[in-house]
Amino acid sequence: MVQKRDELRWNGWGRLDRFFDMGGRENEVWRVFAEAFGVPSLPHTPPPSLEETEIPPSRATQALIGALGEVISTDRIRTTPYERAFHAYGRSYHDLLRLRSGKIEHAPDVVVYPCNLDEVLGVLKVAERFSCAVIPFGGGTSVVGGVEAKKGDSHEAIITLDTTLLSRFIGVDPTSLTATAEAGIDGPDLENALSSCGYFLGHYPQSFEHSTLGGWIASRSAGQLSNRYGTIADMVVSVQLATPSGVLETKPFPASAAGPDLNALISGSEGTLGVITKATLRVHRLPECRRIDAFLFRDFWEGVDALRSLVQEEVGASLIRLSDPEETKWFGALDRVINPKPLQNFAEDLLNHLGYREKSLMLVGFEGKQEEVERASRRARAILRSSRGLFVGEGPGRSWWKKRFHMPYLRDPMLDHGLGIDTLETASEWSHLPRLYEEVCRALRDSLSTSTFTPLVLTHISHSYHDGASLYFTWIFLRDSRDPIGQWKKAKHAASFAIVKNHGTISHHHGVGIDHAPFLVDEKGKVGMQLLEHIKRSLDPHSIMNPGKLMAGNR
Amino acid sequence: MVQKRDELRWNGWGRLDRFFDMGGRENEVWRVFAEAFGVPSLPHTPPPSLEETEIPPSRATQALIGALGEVISTDRIRTTPYERAFHAYGRSYHDLLRLRSGKIEHAPDVVVYPCNLDEVLGVLKVAERFSCAVIPFGGGTSVVGGVEAKKGDSHEAIITLDTTLLSRFIGVDPTSLTATAEAGIDGPDLENALSSCGYFLGHYPQSFEHSTLGGWIASRSAGQLSNRYGTIADMVVSVQLATPSGVLETKPFPASAAGPDLNALISGSEGTLGVITKATLRVHRLPECRRIDAFLFRDFWEGVDALRSLVQEEVGASLIRLSDPEETKWFGALDRVINPKPLQNFAEDLLNHLGYREKSLMLVGFEGKQEEVERASRRARAILRSSRGLFVGEGPGRSWWKKRFHMPYLRDPMLDHGLGIDTLETASEWSHLPRLYEEVCRALRDSLSTSTFTPLVLTHISHSYHDGASLYFTWIFLRDSRDPIGQWKKAKHAASFAIVKNHGTISHHHGVGIDHAPFLVDEKGKVGMQLLEHIKRSLDPHSIMNPGKLMAGNR
Repeated sequence: MVQKRDELRWNGWGRLDRFFDMGGRENEVWRVFAEAFGVPSLPHTPPPSLEETEIPPSRATQALIGALGEVISTDRIRTTPYERAFHAYGRSYHDLLRLRSGKIEHAPDVVVYPCNLDEVLGVLKVAERFSCAVIPFGGGTSVVGGVEAKKGDSHEAIITLDTTLLSRFIGVDPTSLTATAEAGIDGPDLENALSSCGYFLGHYPQSFEHSTLGGWIASRSAGQLSNRYGTIADMVVSVQLATPSGVLETKPFPASAAGPDLNALISGSEGTLGVITKATLRVHRLPECRRIDAFLFRDFWEGVDALRSLVQEEVGASLIRLSDPEETKWFGALDRVINPKPLQNFAEDLLNHLGYREKSLMLVGFEGKQEEVERASRRARAILRSSRGLFVGEGPGRSWWKKRFHMPYLRDPMLDHGLGIDTLETASEWSHLPRLYEEVCRALRDSLSTSTFTPLVLTHISHSYHDGASLYFTWIFLRDSRDPIGQWKKAKHAASFAIVKNHGTISHHHGVGIDHAPFLVDEKGKVGMQLLEHIKRSLDPHSIMNPGKLMAGNR
Repeated sequence: MVQKRDELRWNGWGRLDRFFDMGGRENEVWRVFAEAFGVPSLPHTPPPSLEETEIPPSRATQALIGALGEVISTDRIRTTPYERAFHAYGRSYHDLLRLRSGKIEHAPDVVVYPCNLDEVLGVLKVAERFSCAVIPFGGGTSVVGGVEAKKGDSHEAIITLDTTLLSRFIGVDPTSLTATAEAGIDGPDLENALSSCGYFLGHYPQSFEHSTLGGWIASRSAGQLSNRYGTIADMVVSVQLATPSGVLETKPFPASAAGPDLNALISGSEGTLGVITKATLRVHRLPECRRIDAFLFRDFWEGVDALRSLVQEEVGASLIRLSDPEETKWFGALDRVINPKPLQNFAEDLLNHLGYREKSLMLVGFEGKQEEVERASRRARAILRSSRGLFVGEGPGRSWWKKRFHMPYLRDPMLDHGLGIDTLETASEWSHLPRLYEEVCRALRDSLSTSTFTPLVLTHISHSYHDGASLYFTWIFLRDSRDPIGQWKKAKHAASFAIVKNHGTISHHHGVGIDHAPFLVDEKGKVGMQLLEHIKRSLDPHSIMNPGKLMAGNR
């Protein structure tokens, strides 16, 4: 069932009828944050309504609307304030600051909803004819500016191409274990279609409930079960990309050696080469069962070494998450406020007594046939025990699994209470991880600290590989009410700089978008950036696709 | 230890001092082939010597040699007949026909052996200045024309760039489990360097003993243990490519989402974009033990279904090979002639009696810790037993493992006896495999059969994936002494045509080279081919790199 745009927040996360559940203990939650930052209370900073928000007039001419009307039915060509505001930005902290500022600087001039490949190609032709930028928009959940309504100097107007009506589930090949769907299908719809016939994809990005198949591929996303099922790039068998130069369609041949793998070029192209319209993915039979074990470590690096053993010894976990002591402490504190449990202080005291004061929590998940899950779990427990990990049962994992798509709903109320929160992520080889972690934490702390408060910087590893792992940082701070964007930019820049200087990728799974584009040259090199520009020129010769994203020079 | 070129056959496979061991039963072997093709005996057709072979004069001018001498020492700039003949072609059947014809039509005008990145870049600059084609040459084992001394219309001469002196092993990162080496290192040298410090790559293409790291990446090669360790493209962490536009160097970041994965563009680029000079690969700790179980199936498709179960149920095999009944029969017959065993006829009769007349042989290998190997082997045996597979012990696997790099040495004596032999391969999704198999076999049989003989067409699956598998065809026939190349071309074209018409990739692991270039458009599409040409233009703007390979329009 296609998500109706008007059931979603235009200036925040998710569905209008869903809220972060604080169990009626809102006051206690805000007191915890106020205490963390050494202030007596948090301010009340609600956002202006859509009616109170200034949106620039649409530059879409009658001629443009008319031409679009020749390739797509008029009820799917929209210029209402709601549609334009909804599609103006993604859902990063930076985006929310701007959506909540009372003035939207840039919005698409028109939003179109094609429902088949021909309509997409038609829109691209019209856009070329009218010198318009085209911004492919799936779930719109980018946190790096990937769908921002930005145009290049030569563009007359911005067309945002919303793919959510291009969302048919096409079918499963039960022999080859592959499934094909149109790219606008969202996570829940794809999951329901697959599970109704006994299959399972295993891709759970944080944005799962709203993001789309096409968006996952465009941004090379990684999900919570990537340890077992890989990132989306590992799942893609073939893909169809509608470009201004025509349709680029890869074939579903396993491990072909017939020239470079073009799937790998489309993955991560972020809408700058064309619109992903269809894809075929590897799927699995529904797992019989799942279990998530929890362990505590006496410090982060003891946990990291243990995690590395699990991966390099191939225990077959589907999920491994390790929080650093700061994150373990803060999420624990929040949980104890919202869900107070009997004896929780006693349990904490006992752990402290056992040396688990600055403790790191690790979750290790398995899925498959009952017997295999039990065997793998036993093997992991043995490895972790010998790495001084303390097994603390399945409770924390069960609770995390249940609430795992719930956390983003906490951000809006935090913004309503004068707080700031953002996340960023990187990855590197195991041998570079310690220094990368230290330097990024330091950059965030140094750039956000004031004479009166220090930010919270919480870190976890949620994706790990034979040769390295990701690092995911959550930073929480008191928002600077005079210049919140300047405050954010300073910290974001300091952290990005620390990443590229300390052997980290500028993104492990959020993508590049606008925010990371200036840093891409550190990763791809000058020759690599030229190559990306040539690739763009081949597929998008008039440079209409998603200007300003991925390549800083892409205008 | 770098392989000396003059210890290798210039017109055949491998080392001059190694021969296919027929256990002194040469006559019996040739009689088996003669009987298969219904002729009383095979002719004697030895090749001419190098001295008897006409080689065109070198077009390398004094000015060119002088300019090369400014970037590389003169003892590594060679124009001798041996060097030019050795580097004229790869090692396909088509190449051998031409090397044995008494006249080499095209040979490199000069062969250079750079030993560092700067020398490679220097050679590329000289080549651009003198309008020369540059052909990167590692082991020279291409079987698709990938290193053929071919020049474009605008080239004055051909420089073959032999990478075998660019072959230092740089080291292992024991934490990240990666290893770095220069790209000219060959299989045995890399394996020895790794195993001496306790590591293992797990890449065993048939050409292993002579091919190089750079060649593996350039051709996206797959090795015998790909079920566990993946193809070379899965192993590459980062790579350095010297191009006419400068050095393209990727970073070793696991699963980065920072734009398209450029490793995947370099893998399979076949020397058309630049020279691969260095790479970092994922490695593993040396496995404790290895076992290879053998099974028989009553027919090929029963075996294929069983194979698919092993892969899709993730038993963790490192090796799965399934021969069709023709291949099982012929390799069995050859083995019984060369290595007669007591009671072999009795064993055959017994198997026939049990219904295994048209039998398919499957090998299933495991490696790792003893306990894991035994457990995985037990699980595989249970799955295969329930698929009507008959376990026949570890003997066939042990024998195959020991002799697995020996088979290519049989080709030269076959060519000396009036026979023809070639191989080709493809891959597809499981659901398309039956038809693809039938049609390629039919195309080879129909195009090679004459009024007096039918070719042998032997097939196996040696690489299998969640969603599909490769098919590897060996075709053996009586060589047409009047027009052996015409005979080969007819069959090769018929088979290639059958592949692309029946949902197969034009290559699973041999690559594209010259031979498959006309068929690449069927896989990549028109938009995809244009994209590849733009990519080439970015890195090789004057089009000097490996003309005629990969892209048919690449001259």
